[in-house]
Amino acid sequence: MAWNTNLRWRLPLTCLLLQVIMVILFGVFVRYDFEADAHWWSERTHKNLSDMENEFYYRYPSFQDVHVMVFVGFGFLMTFLQRYGFSAVGFNFLLAAFGIQWALLMQGWFHFLQDRYIVVGVENLINADFCVASVCVAFGAVLGKVSPIQLLIMTFFQVTLFAVNEFILLNLLKVKDAGGSMTIHTFGAYFGLTVTRILYRRNLEQSKERQNSVYQSDLFAMIGTLFLWMYWPSFNSAISYHGDSQHRAAINTYCSLAACVLTSVAISSALHKKGKLDMVHIQNATLAGGVAVGTAAEMMLMPYGALIIGFVCGIISTLGFVYLTPFLESRLHIQDTCGINNLHGIPGIIGGIVGAVTAASASLEVYGKEGFQRGLDRKNTGKVPDLWSLGDPGHGPDGWHHCGAHFEITILGTTFR
Amino acid sequence: MAWNTNLRWRLPLTCLLLQVIMVILFGVFVRYDFEADAHWWSERTHKNLSDMENEFYYRYPSFQDVHVMVFVGFGFLMTFLQRYGFSAVGFNFLLAAFGIQWALLMQGWFHFLQDRYIVVGVENLINADFCVASVCVAFGAVLGKVSPIQLLIMTFFQVTLFAVNEFILLNLLKVKDAGGSMTIHTFGAYFGLTVTRILYRRNLEQSKERQNSVYQSDLFAMIGTLFLWMYWPSFNSAISYHGDSQHRAAINTYCSLAACVLTSVAISSALHKKGKLDMVHIQNATLAGGVAVGTAAEMMLMPYGALIIGFVCGIISTLGFVYLTPFLESRLHIQDTCGINNLHGIPGIIGGIVGAVTAASASLEVYGKEGFQRGLDRKNTGKVPDLWSLGDPGHGPDGWHHCGAHFEITILGTTFR
Amino acid sequence: MAWNTNLRWRLPLTCLLLQVIMVILFGVFVRYDFEADAHWWSERTHKNLSDMENEFYYRYPSFQDVHVMVFVGFGFLMTFLQRYGFSAVGFNFLLAAFGIQWALLMQGWFHFLQDRYIVVGVENLINADFCVASVCVAFGAVLGKVSPIQLLIMTFFQVTLFAVNEFILLNLLKVKDAGGSMTIHTFGAYFGLTVTRILYRRNLEQSKERQNSVYQSDLFAMIGTLFLWMYWPSFNSAISYHGDSQHRAAINTYCSLAACVLTSVAISSALHKKGKLDMVHIQNATLAGGVAVGTAAEMMLMPYGALIIGFVCGIISTLGFVYLTPFLESRLHIQDTCGINNLHGIPGIIGGIVGAVTAASASLEVYGKEGFQRGLDRKNTGKVPDLWSLGDPGHGPDGWHHCGAHFEITILGTTFR
Repeated sequence: MAWNTNLRWRLPLTCLLLQVIMVILFGVFVRYDFEADAHWWSERTHKNLSDMENEFYYRYPSFQDVHVMVFVGFGFLMTFLQRYGFSAVGFNFLLAAFGIQWALLMQGWFHFLQDRYIVVGVENLINADFCVASVCVAFGAVLGKVSPIQLLIMTFFQVTLFAVNEFILLNLLKVKDAGGSMTIHTFGAYFGLTVTRILYRRNLEQSKERQNSVYQSDLFAMIGTLFLWMYWPSFNSAISYHGDSQHRAAINTYCSLAACVLTSVAISSALHKKGKLDMVHIQNATLAGGVAVGTAAEMMLMPYGALIIGFVCGIISTLGFVYLTPFLESRLHIQDTCGINNLHGIPGIIGGIVGAVTAASASLEVYGKEGFQRGLDRKNTGKVPDLWSLGDPGHGPDGWHHCGAHFEITILGTTFR
Repeated sequence: MAWNTNLRWRLPLTCLLLQVIMVILFGVFVRYDFEADAHWWSERTHKNLSDMENEFYYRYPSFQDVHVMVFVGFGFLMTFLQRYGFSAVGFNFLLAAFGIQWALLMQGWFHFLQDRYIVVGVENLINADFCVASVCVAFGAVLGKVSPIQLLIMTFFQVTLFAVNEFILLNLLKVKDAGGSMTIHTFGAYFGLTVTRILYRRNLEQSKERQNSVYQSDLFAMIGTLFLWMYWPSFNSAISYHGDSQHRAAINTYCSLAACVLTSVAISSALHKKGKLDMVHIQNATLAGGVAVGTAAEMMLMPYGALIIGFVCGIISTLGFVYLTPFLESRLHIQDTCGINNLHGIPGIIGGIVGAVTAASASLEVYGKEGFQRGLDRKNTGKVPDLWSLGDPGHGPDGWHHCGAHFEITILGTTFR
Repeated sequence: MAWNTNLRWRLPLTCLLLQVIMVILFGVFVRYDFEADAHWWSERTHKNLSDMENEFYYRYPSFQDVHVMVFVGFGFLMTFLQRYGFSAVGFNFLLAAFGIQWALLMQGWFHFLQDRYIVVGVENLINADFCVASVCVAFGAVLGKVSPIQLLIMTFFQVTLFAVNEFILLNLLKVKDAGGSMTIHTFGAYFGLTVTRILYRRNLEQSKERQNSVYQSDLFAMIGTLFLWMYWPSFNSAISYHGDSQHRAAINTYCSLAACVLTSVAISSALHKKGKLDMVHIQNATLAGGVAVGTAAEMMLMPYGALIIGFVCGIISTLGFVYLTPFLESRLHIQDTCGINNLHGIPGIIGGIVGAVTAASASLEVYGKEGFQRGLDRKNTGKVPDLWSLGDPGHGPDGWHHCGAHFEITILGTTFR
């Protein structure tokens, strides 16, 4: 790399400059959503609307869980390398703090413009966290190879592309992706793998001891793993429709994750020559079930369907850590420090396929009139107009099939970016 | 031990087999609760029922807190032994992931069958976590002595017996046990102590150095302690009636736990020859107040009543760690690694007694018409038919006294299982 | 110090005595709030009030977040000193457990008396946690210098003064301070600094190695930092008005904290001779934005306003760590172990000024009829009569200006206590 990462003034100036730009753009563009606006809500309450109907109470607990996943979950998950423990948590903190601001703007311009203003409410905060989660995923591939400035630049570009990709998937292709298997995980993983391929350094292979983990660092990493695992039901249900959809998304994710733990342990032990467990698998592959159930989390998957997804992904993800990661490094020169291809990449693709199949097989009997209509219709709760619609309103019941039809294009588009 | 815990294929096959059985049984038996069912909820909304009335919004924040207690709380609480830190967190993760699936089935067959299906909603998830909490308690007694396979087998049997015991207590004896002092803590503790008695190994006594704690491991254990302590109000209020009951259960638990910290510290310091604090007491005895207030948490205990419970339990629990645990090991050959008898066993029994006394002294003036009726009546919110009722509908006001009457039998039944 | 902190019976007797006093006072004074009272709520439901309207569901998720901040956040934030890690977490646990009981009483006598009883609900629990947070702040200044008994005594006096100060600010001066910039942070910081000045020990300066941090302890401290940072939106919105106010307070805090991270990093790197990051700054200064936005969090600050506050405070706080803390120690003999002056003191004062300016510029157009009226009126939700009102009902629109007018007196009163 030509960059001298220790140049004394580069990091301070980058941070200050970015933050000044954020202040200016927020000043020009960002205002409160009507449910967070004193004047608007003050008028609304006269229409006999209970304070409890404010979107805040539907989404805030899930938002906080997602927030913990992004900062503690991803941050500590990457502390398993003794040498990079503080970098992992600290740099993750920095990139996420910048990323959420930039994501509020980028996603706002694409999805939440009213007149010329971006209106911000609790749902935007969740979406910004989601967007940053995708950057945290990508960070996992380049951990130990990048400086804070490079991370900020990567965040800038990835958030921008994330918003474009999300717009294409959700608004143009009418894909529904509540838990972000495609938009967050697959995109984040292949973006990160592309970056790490570009940053390939041969001599890193010799310094294997830098990738050592120690006992304490493994316990710190388990903090990250467990907070991700426990709060994943909130991740997948955070921006679902109110009522049964949020309820169902949480149940499905809960089931999928539970199954994933058992099969990850099984394969990890089976592939170890003494039958022991590899901590990297426990820390990572156990989460694959949450990734894969993301897209279809709010669908009528049935609990056993969720279990099957978790079952399969625990196996595939662990196999990936054992066979695929070394192959990628030795043959394709892709150094995937945290194995994000196995945790986010492949499970994300599986999640997209599951979502396409589930959407294609949706029926009026299973979803009821309103539920099915929501699948076809653009109208949501009236607040996030086109963002999370499941199908194309112009195509009748075929709308559901669109997901399936356009899906391959989507994956191709994401993979070969 | 006759088991060779390193046999290479035993763990993988056990995990895969159990998970395949789970998938099949879920496929045959488990469906969504009506509040998580798209068709049902879609119809319901036409009846002018707000989305906010979905059970999800009443219980989901508490569910997530309980989830954290089971996986991070119990997992990290047991990391205080330097040698078993990773086993504690990792094996706890494995057993809990299997246990919640099996608990959904077992509790479903006993309590949530509709036609031939178990209907699963957020309340089932909480109950499954509760059931697994009892296994985590028992794990505390055998930490360092069991292999993962043995743990899975123990989980299988304990969850089964838990569901039977819960059915006897709640449905046959009509006991009310919101925070699970009896069903979760007392049962878990004495089940675990029975298992550790069976697994008694004389030579463990010589290897005292294996039970060492170090500075870092004590800080990790404090993560577990604090998350258990902080979220215990959610534990005890998670499945209480809506409204005042959940509100009161949280307040009572908050008060009891606060008092417990001061008396634990007092006794710990008083019994140390230099007046110092023993970290094991700070990590464990401070939680006894939450256990003991469990059964009666939603009753009109009054804040000072809760303080008294915490006051007493902090003292008894710390005394137990100092005098009872060594006695049990040397005389009865019960090696209680984490001292669960002092944290869950005895405080659980106290909790049951408090519950019986409180129920026996309930009156119409204190609880109001509806509250008192709920005590006598089986009907709850209409969703969990007989599970959490407080009395016997056939016996009039005497129903409350039944709790007291049958209580001794219950304890006997639990203790000498 | 004349105290012999190891006197064997002093700590046990202090703890037991305090706890006995708490039990007696709770018995005489504390009862349930009507929303946690079985009789009252049982009657109320007949008036067609949904269970969901219980205050519990508006505030409980935020309460749990605040609870985590007090016990895990402040506790682990102070583990950065290797030598005092366990003291930090353990003593923080002890003082907070006592403090919340005493705070329930003190705040109750000033604000929640009905007839002769203090009525306790979820809002009181949050306020008690807030009060204790101020003690945790002060503890940061004296960490490593005080015994548990001294901490309990300090807690006793600080909670008492906190309630008096809060009464003066909120009830007499009609100041509104939702996130407690003034009442919690400024008060806590300058109380702590006063105590540490009194406890000044010259020889501490020689034992610099006692203030060392190590790699592991820095990671533990990041647990505290992140939980404080993530849950701060809940802290600032926990006791705001229902609906738009809570919603807005969360958004403003989220924005302010994000900006604060970037400017802290910038200044930290700029002032390091090799351009590296100082972990103490990352652990502390990144939080200053949450402190400073506290008072005005629920006002119509606009997201860019919140960003500017965070921007400024990140810079000032980091500068404080680099220049002010050494100055205070060498010249004024104020040994500020955790740098609370930079994290809570100065940002708290800034927060008060921001609050005064925002309140002074409030208008009917921006806040709407109801919102503006709330600013002038004492009536809140009917539950916390005068506590959180923004202005003086007797002065018309001028009420808002009162905040500004009385503000300097407030600060003076707080600073020179």
